[in-house]
Amino acid sequence: MQIDPNWVAGFVDGEGTFYVGINRQPSMKVGYQVLPEFRIVQHQKDIKLLHALRNFFNAGVVRVNHDDRYELRIRDMKILISQIVPFFQKHTLHTQKKFDFIKFSKILNLMVQGKHLTKEGLIKIIDIALKMNRADKKKAIEIKKKLING
Amino acid sequence: MQIDPNWVAGFVDGEGTFYVGINRQPSMKVGYQVLPEFRIVQHQKDIKLLHALRNFFNAGVVRVNHDDRYELRIRDMKILISQIVPFFQKHTLHTQKKFDFIKFSKILNLMVQGKHLTKEGLIKIIDIALKMNRADKKKAIEIKKKLING
Repeated sequence: MQIDPNWVAGFVDGEGTFYVGINRQPSMKVGYQVLPEFRIVQHQKDIKLLHALRNFFNAGVVRVNHDDRYELRIRDMKILISQIVPFFQKHTLHTQKKFDFIKFSKILNLMVQGKHLTKEGLIKIIDIALKMNRADKKKAIEIKKKLING
Repeated sequence: MQIDPNWVAGFVDGEGTFYVGINRQPSMKVGYQVLPEFRIVQHQKDIKLLHALRNFFNAGVVRVNHDDRYELRIRDMKILISQIVPFFQKHTLHTQKKFDFIKFSKILNLMVQGKHLTKEGLIKIIDIALKMNRADKKKAIEIKKKLING
């Protein structure tokens, strides 16, 4: 399958997700782990395409998302920073997802500077993440409250 | 907004629909009208993109789909045949939607030959349309039954 980079940008504009998870992680000094992730979810019938996209990026893993849906997921920080961000800087997104991508890049930048390892930095990251399109706003707000009060 | 044709193919692979409606139309000899349609539905927040895609294709109309969702819809047969089909023949789709597109093209081809105006042709078109990804299979099956029995 020969995939054009601009096709990938268009497809991700429709089907991709730039997500930043924030999870409890007692082993870390600040108590929470920041987990940026790029993913594309498809119905099982298009699992071959997910593998083709995995080959295209030469990164990530194809795994079950839920039920009959599969995802290509890229979590490797080095790859997100050195490949994924430059790719979508070059091949522009056109939907409002572009703004999620910009926030995603900002958070990665802060992480490169180690900001996620301090309380202040983590609060800043959560504030950016809260402006992204996400289903778990409540959880992130709770964590922010705990950080401020704790 | 400068849109790359391959971006459009990728976006349509995720967000586009090739649909063939079959509706009761007493004014037609065969009693039913075949209505092929290409559409892209987006949330209201991306309505500007729908207009940009309208300009890209230089065809169609941007209108409400339902609730806060809008669509670019192209129904003009001449444009579907002379522009939309050649476009996606050149800029290949990679998901299973490709097979919907191929069936869509086949039906357009049959319509160019006037097949939709005869009972036998219409049944053939419905058979192809039933193999496409559609929500209203029951309706199409009912129409087919009526044509065979009527």
